[in-house]
Amino acid sequence: MARMALGVSYDGASWQGWQTQPHRCTVQDTLEAALARFMAQPQPTICAGRTDTGVHALGQVVHLDGVAERRLESWVRGVNALLPTTIAVQWACTVPDTFHARFSAVSRTYIYVVRHARVRSPIVHGRVGWVHQPLDLVPMQQAAQCLLGEHDFSSFRSSQCQAASPIRTMHELQIEQRGDFFIFTLRANAFLHHMVRNLIGALLYVGQGRQPPQWIEILLAQRDRRLAAPTFAADGLYLAQVEYPAMFGLPAPSLQTLFASHLGFCANDS
Amino acid sequence: MARMALGVSYDGASWQGWQTQPHRCTVQDTLEAALARFMAQPQPTICAGRTDTGVHALGQVVHLDGVAERRLESWVRGVNALLPTTIAVQWACTVPDTFHARFSAVSRTYIYVVRHARVRSPIVHGRVGWVHQPLDLVPMQQAAQCLLGEHDFSSFRSSQCQAASPIRTMHELQIEQRGDFFIFTLRANAFLHHMVRNLIGALLYVGQGRQPPQWIEILLAQRDRRLAAPTFAADGLYLAQVEYPAMFGLPAPSLQTLFASHLGFCANDS
Repeated sequence: MARMALGVSYDGASWQGWQTQPHRCTVQDTLEAALARFMAQPQPTICAGRTDTGVHALGQVVHLDGVAERRLESWVRGVNALLPTTIAVQWACTVPDTFHARFSAVSRTYIYVVRHARVRSPIVHGRVGWVHQPLDLVPMQQAAQCLLGEHDFSSFRSSQCQAASPIRTMHELQIEQRGDFFIFTLRANAFLHHMVRNLIGALLYVGQGRQPPQWIEILLAQRDRRLAAPTFAADGLYLAQVEYPAMFGLPAPSLQTLFASHLGFCANDS
Repeated sequence: MARMALGVSYDGASWQGWQTQPHRCTVQDTLEAALARFMAQPQPTICAGRTDTGVHALGQVVHLDGVAERRLESWVRGVNALLPTTIAVQWACTVPDTFHARFSAVSRTYIYVVRHARVRSPIVHGRVGWVHQPLDLVPMQQAAQCLLGEHDFSSFRSSQCQAASPIRTMHELQIEQRGDFFIFTLRANAFLHHMVRNLIGALLYVGQGRQPPQWIEILLAQRDRRLAAPTFAADGLYLAQVEYPAMFGLPAPSLQTLFASHLGFCANDS
């Protein structure tokens, strides 16, 4: 009997978020039901980041206990055979009892993909945010600089956020343009409720020229959610990666690999 | 009162094909219902290619008659406001009465995207075909050569195909690899029922080493559907583009533009 970690990806558009609910239309309920069938006993799980309705995952991490020895590949195939097409276990790994999917995590990386186009695309609907106004990359990149480091992110925190502290450390905030698509990569020790979507909403105001780049720094200093932009759609948001100390020995595919494998069907590398 | 052409994209996974059915869960039924509301009168449409259940479109073309003058941009916005997120009109254009979406078409281009990976991806499920066995690009490219030009494609024709002749002319068949993804581009004057999916099924047998490249030429010569590979999944199939004589003046975005705009969120061009 051991503790086990699983890497899980899912299409958030099909689910009402990660966390278990009475209606059971959640990723956690569905994953735990598949695990219970596979192990023939209840299998509660703990995840690294409880994603909201509509938010996708490339590399969610969960742990569970009381696991009998089986080949790791059997875990992946066996559980996936019991899951719907909108959820898949990507890897399985035995971990020490000191490992905790949430508390051992050193950082989380989210990706947000926005498409700028005159007309919406049914092909990427639910997978990518959409703006029909032109977007300027450079002002958004300038505005993002002030968010790096340790800050009180109260201006970008949902009123329903239950975190004890609004202080978070942003390690990385990159924005790049690939044709009609803008890709935001945010890595922090942890995120407040709706923090990424509120930041994206504000940065898009800057990209659309509705606010100057300096506005983000002013917002941050005000610590007042009511002054910022509306929460942007969940559609383009991915929990891409969770980082743990190397001693736990978890599979750690690079962000580039994860992105290319799940979203990169037209990457130019071969 | 004029004839009008529309460029239409849709997510085929949400619909039971293009063509109207009594249950009305088709793209045609849904588009015509939106057009009827927009114009306050029934609006029958004729399309360039009647796609099957699960097949997507980047650039389906339809025409309709008896259209009152309005700004073309109003058409796009107005009809899209009445359509679900899984269908969108991309452009509208008035055309001469001699234009016919099906009979005026000079060629059709389909794209098929296959992902090779050990584990399925919920993110691209329904948008991309999946093989877990390794795929070799070069044997598939070699095998595809014999399909170019005019041939009797009976070996790749569904038993339900209603076309009068099994003769078609393949103008282009390109296969390229981008990381885990294999992209097949097929352009012909027209396609038989299930022809693309049957060709992809056979080419993947070659790519997996289950058959040598020469097998495709043998199949083609046999003119017997029972000898070929199973019809491959609809998931990764896109009606990408329909080509018309320049005199009709239709918008003609390049295949690269269409692909990059709807599927290219990680293209490296900026």
